[in-house]
Amino acid sequence: MNIQDKSSGNPSGKASDLAPGSITTGPLPASRKVFVASDHDPRVSVAMREIDLEPSSGEAPIRVYDTSGPYTDPAATIDIAQGLASVRGDWIRERGDVEEYVGRDIRPEDNGLKEGEALTVPVFDRDHRKVLRGKPGKNITQLQYARDGIVTPEMEYIAVRENNGREAALREAGPTRDKGEGFGANIPEFITGEFVRSEVAAGRAIIPANINHPEAEPMIIGRNFLVKINANIGNSAVTSSAAEEVDKLVWATRWGADNVMDLSTGQHIHTIREWIIRNSPVPIGTVPIYQALEKVNGIAEDLTWEIYRDTLIEQCEQGVDYFTIHAGLRLAHIPLTVSRVTGIVSRGGAILAKWCLAHHRENFLHTHFEDICEIMGQYDVAFSLGDGLRPGSTADANDAAQFAELETLGELHKIADRHNIQTMIEGPGHVPMHKIKENMEKQLEVCNEAPFYTLGPLVTDIAPGYDHITSGIGAAMIGWYGTAMLCYVTPKEHLGLPNRDDVKVGVVTYKIAAHAADLAKGHPTACERDDAISRARFEFRWRDQFNLALDPETAIDFHDETLPAEGAKIAHFCSMCGPKFCSMKISHEVRAAAAVQNDVTGAEAGMKSKAQEFIERGGEIYLKQDVKGAAK
Amino acid sequence: MNIQDKSSGNPSGKASDLAPGSITTGPLPASRKVFVASDHDPRVSVAMREIDLEPSSGEAPIRVYDTSGPYTDPAATIDIAQGLASVRGDWIRERGDVEEYVGRDIRPEDNGLKEGEALTVPVFDRDHRKVLRGKPGKNITQLQYARDGIVTPEMEYIAVRENNGREAALREAGPTRDKGEGFGANIPEFITGEFVRSEVAAGRAIIPANINHPEAEPMIIGRNFLVKINANIGNSAVTSSAAEEVDKLVWATRWGADNVMDLSTGQHIHTIREWIIRNSPVPIGTVPIYQALEKVNGIAEDLTWEIYRDTLIEQCEQGVDYFTIHAGLRLAHIPLTVSRVTGIVSRGGAILAKWCLAHHRENFLHTHFEDICEIMGQYDVAFSLGDGLRPGSTADANDAAQFAELETLGELHKIADRHNIQTMIEGPGHVPMHKIKENMEKQLEVCNEAPFYTLGPLVTDIAPGYDHITSGIGAAMIGWYGTAMLCYVTPKEHLGLPNRDDVKVGVVTYKIAAHAADLAKGHPTACERDDAISRARFEFRWRDQFNLALDPETAIDFHDETLPAEGAKIAHFCSMCGPKFCSMKISHEVRAAAAVQNDVTGAEAGMKSKAQEFIERGGEIYLKQDVKGAAK
Repeated sequence: MNIQDKSSGNPSGKASDLAPGSITTGPLPASRKVFVASDHDPRVSVAMREIDLEPSSGEAPIRVYDTSGPYTDPAATIDIAQGLASVRGDWIRERGDVEEYVGRDIRPEDNGLKEGEALTVPVFDRDHRKVLRGKPGKNITQLQYARDGIVTPEMEYIAVRENNGREAALREAGPTRDKGEGFGANIPEFITGEFVRSEVAAGRAIIPANINHPEAEPMIIGRNFLVKINANIGNSAVTSSAAEEVDKLVWATRWGADNVMDLSTGQHIHTIREWIIRNSPVPIGTVPIYQALEKVNGIAEDLTWEIYRDTLIEQCEQGVDYFTIHAGLRLAHIPLTVSRVTGIVSRGGAILAKWCLAHHRENFLHTHFEDICEIMGQYDVAFSLGDGLRPGSTADANDAAQFAELETLGELHKIADRHNIQTMIEGPGHVPMHKIKENMEKQLEVCNEAPFYTLGPLVTDIAPGYDHITSGIGAAMIGWYGTAMLCYVTPKEHLGLPNRDDVKVGVVTYKIAAHAADLAKGHPTACERDDAISRARFEFRWRDQFNLALDPETAIDFHDETLPAEGAKIAHFCSMCGPKFCSMKISHEVRAAAAVQNDVTGAEAGMKSKAQEFIERGGEIYLKQDVKGAAK
Repeated sequence: MNIQDKSSGNPSGKASDLAPGSITTGPLPASRKVFVASDHDPRVSVAMREIDLEPSSGEAPIRVYDTSGPYTDPAATIDIAQGLASVRGDWIRERGDVEEYVGRDIRPEDNGLKEGEALTVPVFDRDHRKVLRGKPGKNITQLQYARDGIVTPEMEYIAVRENNGREAALREAGPTRDKGEGFGANIPEFITGEFVRSEVAAGRAIIPANINHPEAEPMIIGRNFLVKINANIGNSAVTSSAAEEVDKLVWATRWGADNVMDLSTGQHIHTIREWIIRNSPVPIGTVPIYQALEKVNGIAEDLTWEIYRDTLIEQCEQGVDYFTIHAGLRLAHIPLTVSRVTGIVSRGGAILAKWCLAHHRENFLHTHFEDICEIMGQYDVAFSLGDGLRPGSTADANDAAQFAELETLGELHKIADRHNIQTMIEGPGHVPMHKIKENMEKQLEVCNEAPFYTLGPLVTDIAPGYDHITSGIGAAMIGWYGTAMLCYVTPKEHLGLPNRDDVKVGVVTYKIAAHAADLAKGHPTACERDDAISRARFEFRWRDQFNLALDPETAIDFHDETLPAEGAKIAHFCSMCGPKFCSMKISHEVRAAAAVQNDVTGAEAGMKSKAQEFIERGGEIYLKQDVKGAAK
């Protein structure tokens, strides 16, 4: 492995430092961007984050998965008007199966503009004649390549990325580690490009990677890989600048969002999406029905396949990596929702149900599903088959409407699979704890292990204002059971639009849920960061404890509220218990004594001398070598 | 049932309204204090909270379990210098098995005062000659009564309190409700005083109820009852007033703390505890070793049984309801911690380990365990057998040290049980998700189903600043598996002292975890509040949604951040999606149409007319009766 150190002293990018219209950049505390090259494919170099520890620790830096892209790399020049550099452009062209063509013209209605209305957001400068699609008759999806036996650079990239630290861990720890409980997951000790290929080929994992979004760093969603999280963003009612919209994306990925969904509606929707995609290091998902509805002035009944189809192509050409498509909501399912407590709570689901009833016809996304497959295969856009009938209350969890739709999603997955279109399945919603596992088991069964992508689930309905927590509980559990990606929920859910702080809290909460799931599933190196922070905690390395935290800023702020002095950060106790009651401090003394006395037999004869020995050592001796031993 | 309405228009008691030194009083929004009388015992009247819903809902008020005591009752006069009125005083004396005696003198060292130091906190005015204990030879514990076949007023109080709404629900819903998954719990449809008695007699539940704390409202901790939560409070470094300390207690119970542990250390410890107990409507727990350590100037080696014993009596006489006693940490266990990542993280555990090693003798709490039982039986103080060796990192979870101590706790439980002393068992700590269930199963097995009382557990170590969430996940799960009480963790855990906001966030997070567990266990009426808030959400009753929330203040504040106008609170959409994309709004239209079309056969012939029908109805018709039907 080859590491290029690109560290620097850039600012931390705290929320408070952000001037209006600027982009949050700079590394997180004590962190450097490193690039890990593949041993198998010279084209592949994977960006990761290394967290340096205090020299006193004698420990190597901890290398962690990094979703933040070039924005945390002080060596990178960020200019959102230029967009990010292409990561995959050459790989896509080298395959020789794509063609450049003149993209569809951008029309006023694409931006939700009526006669006489003008765009107030600047246009991203891109030549729409330079759009890619598969050559005629070519399916250019990662699933197609996987089934053709090809390990693409994208797959190799993902192998290096997911594999972070596993080689060394395997060498050191061997097969003695805690294997966790994976409920049938098949997590290898070491991930190869070939393993990635085989999982994609089996339909158990997807690589959302539109050929028109070469700026994104390849990532994978599947139950045998690290659990991923998605953050939703959307335009504000009054958008003052493109930078503001791009920064929402940058902010979410800074804290760990693996994917971002742009759920914008209303005006400027096309242009804002262009700014986001051109500047996104992570895959971008959308719900195309939202934009299609804008094009018919919000009247669901007026939606047509032609308008929807045109919107799909518009977004395929822009580079959207996956589409939420509510093709599983069928006309016959709608009466099943009549006795629900909260009816239909999915926006897309409600729009389509209204269309179905107005025309009394089958959902046009269902009748045109193969047409949709044809389009998506030309750009390698993945399906995220939407759960338009997800329960919006615990009372409606696992009901007939929900599971009828899930079965339809399973049937659609088979069709998409036949077309070699990558597919994941969306899941609930509001589900009490005892009903969560059934969701996962049923999904695995009817969708042939296609990746599950769930919103929470929220385990109770009674805590608006805290729904990142009610849903974080369910997310951790369903992630453990096998969900591949968790869609975040912010504290504002059910109440209002999330602000910057809400987005951060939502992302960090879901990183907790995803990581807790990784630990429980026994991902080979998931516990490395936990163990490092625990050693730091036990050794009173406060700075390391902050820097290894998912959110170092909050950790430091909370510590400083009680003990702001710089000296407190090297103290061998903290504000919680003070020196007299510090269990960790006493524990070091105990450890020193126990190490001396570990030939304890209980024989009364030896006791007095042992006690004397301890007193003579004064209880203050800290046997450094013992602690290091414990760190193994 | 007999209900006395004591509603009034008192202020909401928001944090911002609190003047220094004052106590937070007044009802929560739209809430009234009601008193529910027992049909079986005329002495028993249980305070509950009723939340009024908007008249448009046509729904009865929702009655919820209320831990807040008289502080939320506008009809109650609060004077902390007088303390709360006695709830149980007559019941205790009527039994005829207690005697009044002159309590132990309060000495300067009880307050951690050295020669020449003066108390700076006012003394609570109580006559120490009026202290109660069991008559010679009498064990006056609820466990003793239960085994003698007596249903005490305390037990009847608990039956009414826990039973809230079950009679009506049983009458209406019958046995068709979701029974959940209880993992062997035995939750009855309806709780009688006799059921409470039998659970206490079996040792499966405890009623922490020191005869010297008659101010507390009886509550129960056991896996066949509602899951409870505990909040920890402690004195500040600089205590400015007794009111400030009392308000910490009041604040925690206002948001739902079922129990409060006073973990104060240092100066004024006795006097502060007196203020807290005299003003507490909930049971108070302590860790007596903290105070004992103060009496030997913080030198663990200088602790003696005599000092500890005297401290126990001091606290028994004050009215502490349960003691955390780390008697399970044995000398032989200590070497098992040497190779741990984080050693011993329990304060009490570390103190006792140090003592054991200094003297190279068995833990004096273990050798004097029967002496301790003798004392506690005279006052009915319950054991909370401390887990001094709980894991402080996920790496140390479920290790030999932890489980060796748990086995000892099981042995001690048998001894306490023989003495008819109520006992619960403390549990971890830091435990990854896949290792949580083993904790519960092992505890049930070795402790003969004695109530389990856990701290979290935290499911990952990497999120300081968010440990209410890392632990809330584990708490919900272990609560579901069978833990009877969950000890809260605040966002400041590992970092600093919780402030008022942190305490609230910690309590609300743990109410979420406990309630999620109740739902999953299938407690007969646990879903009532969820269903009520879900109906309110679906019917755009914003005020009801706020008022039914665990934290109405935060819900309102979050809503008003985006849509502050009063009119927005009656709008049939919200800021998240706007009217065009509001799934609930569309869903009402869909429901209206589906109700008309629910004779759908799919026959092409009928489709056009159905579609026409929907269009004619304009999609705007909201069939009120259908929604009400759904609410059942």
